[in-house]
Amino acid sequence: MHGLADDFVAELCEWIAIPSIGADPAHHADVARSAEWLATALRRDGWPTVEVWDTGPALPAVYACWPAEDPAAPVVLVYGHHDVQPVDPVEHWQHPPFEAVVRGEELFGRGASDDKGQVAMHLLGLRAHLAATGQTAPSVTLKLLVEGEEESGSPHIATLLAEHRTKLGADLVVFTDTPLFDRSAPTVCTGQRGHITATITMTSGNSDLHSGRFGGGVPNAAIALARLVAAVHDEQGRIAIPGFYDDVREPSALEREHFARLPFDEAAWLAGPADGVTAATGEAGWTTLERTWVRPTAEITGIHGGYTGPGVKTIVPRQASTALTCRLVPDQQLDRVQELIRRFVAEHTPPGVTAEVVFHGSGVPPYAVDIDHPATLAVRDALAAAFDQEVLFSRTGGSGPAALLHAWLDVPVVYFGATLPDDRIHAPNERVVLPVLLRGAEALARLWRLLPDRLRTPAAEPAGITAELGLAGSARPEPGREQEANRA
Amino acid sequence: MHGLADDFVAELCEWIAIPSIGADPAHHADVARSAEWLATALRRDGWPTVEVWDTGPALPAVYACWPAEDPAAPVVLVYGHHDVQPVDPVEHWQHPPFEAVVRGEELFGRGASDDKGQVAMHLLGLRAHLAATGQTAPSVTLKLLVEGEEESGSPHIATLLAEHRTKLGADLVVFTDTPLFDRSAPTVCTGQRGHITATITMTSGNSDLHSGRFGGGVPNAAIALARLVAAVHDEQGRIAIPGFYDDVREPSALEREHFARLPFDEAAWLAGPADGVTAATGEAGWTTLERTWVRPTAEITGIHGGYTGPGVKTIVPRQASTALTCRLVPDQQLDRVQELIRRFVAEHTPPGVTAEVVFHGSGVPPYAVDIDHPATLAVRDALAAAFDQEVLFSRTGGSGPAALLHAWLDVPVVYFGATLPDDRIHAPNERVVLPVLLRGAEALARLWRLLPDRLRTPAAEPAGITAELGLAGSARPEPGREQEANRA
Repeated sequence: MHGLADDFVAELCEWIAIPSIGADPAHHADVARSAEWLATALRRDGWPTVEVWDTGPALPAVYACWPAEDPAAPVVLVYGHHDVQPVDPVEHWQHPPFEAVVRGEELFGRGASDDKGQVAMHLLGLRAHLAATGQTAPSVTLKLLVEGEEESGSPHIATLLAEHRTKLGADLVVFTDTPLFDRSAPTVCTGQRGHITATITMTSGNSDLHSGRFGGGVPNAAIALARLVAAVHDEQGRIAIPGFYDDVREPSALEREHFARLPFDEAAWLAGPADGVTAATGEAGWTTLERTWVRPTAEITGIHGGYTGPGVKTIVPRQASTALTCRLVPDQQLDRVQELIRRFVAEHTPPGVTAEVVFHGSGVPPYAVDIDHPATLAVRDALAAAFDQEVLFSRTGGSGPAALLHAWLDVPVVYFGATLPDDRIHAPNERVVLPVLLRGAEALARLWRLLPDRLRTPAAEPAGITAELGLAGSARPEPGREQEANRA
Repeated sequence: MHGLADDFVAELCEWIAIPSIGADPAHHADVARSAEWLATALRRDGWPTVEVWDTGPALPAVYACWPAEDPAAPVVLVYGHHDVQPVDPVEHWQHPPFEAVVRGEELFGRGASDDKGQVAMHLLGLRAHLAATGQTAPSVTLKLLVEGEEESGSPHIATLLAEHRTKLGADLVVFTDTPLFDRSAPTVCTGQRGHITATITMTSGNSDLHSGRFGGGVPNAAIALARLVAAVHDEQGRIAIPGFYDDVREPSALEREHFARLPFDEAAWLAGPADGVTAATGEAGWTTLERTWVRPTAEITGIHGGYTGPGVKTIVPRQASTALTCRLVPDQQLDRVQELIRRFVAEHTPPGVTAEVVFHGSGVPPYAVDIDHPATLAVRDALAAAFDQEVLFSRTGGSGPAALLHAWLDVPVVYFGATLPDDRIHAPNERVVLPVLLRGAEALARLWRLLPDRLRTPAAEPAGITAELGLAGSARPEPGREQEANRA
């Protein structure tokens, strides 16, 4: 692994040097160069099929396939992305964002963690898998889809999936764009939230009116809107939109127990990642991790009405708007939530006021994989062996195209990531912790070995998993697996 | 009166030609020219003392005094202003705003109604008074204070009052900057609301946070602010700030009866002045006129938080602000209302959120004169004679420096105005209706005659006023007054 690792670091640095900022049209040529770089690397590794999909409307995506020797082996599609976030504020970077630097265990640079580092981990993982097994082809048929628009919200992922549905066909999707819970607590992510955003505009007349002459006698659009917003949550922090929780799938007792066992230091989280929030608040009856992972939300992401410049303008504003973003969890349906929001707004529009609700696109659906799915358990076991410790279940509160992959390809999606939540993705000084990423590659090498067996016996393990709960060393590799671990 | 009126129109056109926009530093020289124009006109009329107060910090104000022959005669200070509103959007004017034009009964131009026309009305009124009485001095000692900053909120009126308190000493202030209720229903205004504005800022952390990663687990400043705003009113439209109504002086039964008798067409008001509001709303138990005249309000004049640009930014905003403007009525005290607001905000600041309350200046106090004050009744009788019809009591919902004049000079303030609510003050195509203004001058000529007698018997009429209610022709001039009317 060590020889492989040296090459790996050099390669990743080379790839990071290509500023593939998908959100910036000035960098679209770099997104294309980044795709070419990846295609070249894949070909160099011996992937038999490598394609750059660059015929639009999506920014260039890379597709590759390496069939297993056994035509009956499971087909696994790995999802990742090669576009990166913008680098502003660039003056806060300690090194130039596209000149990757290794300092101790860390490799700094834009995309080091999100998601070039994790895609490169897959290349390394397969090399390790082949080296460890002595095979000339992987134990599963591996497909790779590395898109170039994830940081822009994957606007054309459905187009790619529709167009290449047959080619992308698989028994399982491995989704690689989420982190471990913590370096000290590697986890299997089992789901992401979805989201939907409505802009709600309330209007009470054609003009702003003088607050002296008219104030008290006419509706105030800003007050009407504030009353609507205030009605969205009850005193317990629950969302008071009727029907909102109808389709919410509650986490299992096992998941809640895993979440509770994670080393979550709320005070440190507030002071650190949450940058100075003084109190964790939210829906009564749920922990902070649960509130941000498995519970839906309704957040006001922006609100505006009337005069907001310097000084005072004594008006009754005619109009006010707000953006309401709901994070959704399985099994909430985007169209049903839209309907519930529309109805709620209509019911909270007072006399003399009209309300308009506009949704920004159709939203991103939530997704979660069964924790007792054999592939979930295989990921857990592979990570446990590579990290040599128990691996718990986690979730992530953000959103991604996992549900779309699931919907279009009609197969389960499991999450496999080996980066860390404090990698400063989307922020200055993004980094990846190399030893963690290398363990991830090691786990992948093992995962491809495990999957043929595990996927042959679906619905096998629920009893085992539940029984396992009581065992402290539950995730310790079994003897048979230990051997694999040594070889990966 | 007709010869006087011709001169009057020519003079007013000349004055309007000076664009004394106090809010625009580029026009400050014009404010000075406007003050000089007025001083010259007053001197031409024979006012023995005329001063331009131009030593700052206030923009130039004009002071004048014309003593009565009888040193025991009451001293009356007339308040008005000579600065005008900006003219934007200038393209909506049918004539250039500073080239006054007479069309039929209307004189168009910026300041025609607010307030040059009404100040000019005082000049004309005194000429008519002298002509009608054959006196060489008015029946009361007349003082004039015409400031140059009213449209900027009279920021230095207290400075002027403090500096010239002795010189401005009077038994009564006649405040001339309010309209009649309607051409068909001349009224005596008996009060203006005050106002106070607080900017309330809620902060939940140091940074906007990602709505996926943190949403549901941390406070949302925009939601906290909206919940505060929503708590300001109860379901009946009453202000729910504890103690807010403690000092509110309710209008008398007589006033409410007068208001109810005014020809107020709510549907026309909504479609016209309120520019398309579809429903009058407000505090339960009060009419629209009462809600806008004698009831306090709490209006959100602006609200802002989070991301409000195009598209969506999936954040939990760290901060949101709102401007809360309360219109106040007697006997609400500015400092007490400030304290109530501060307490209310503190009580509605949820865990994890901090709130800051900043008041814009100390606010403008409310003012109302007793409806049975002899001077109020004298104004009513003078108007009734000039307009030859019953004159009811009204109020105005806006604010002005009447309470400050009252507080500094320690005398009652009565309102005397002869303009109309649809004069489009502060808007394009401001106009004044000349026959109405001329009747106002006629009423003034009579008022100065009435006041020496009326002010000699203070607290005389309450019983009479109340008894008068039952009389249809209550405001008909008494015989003695009719004679004066013919002479004015």
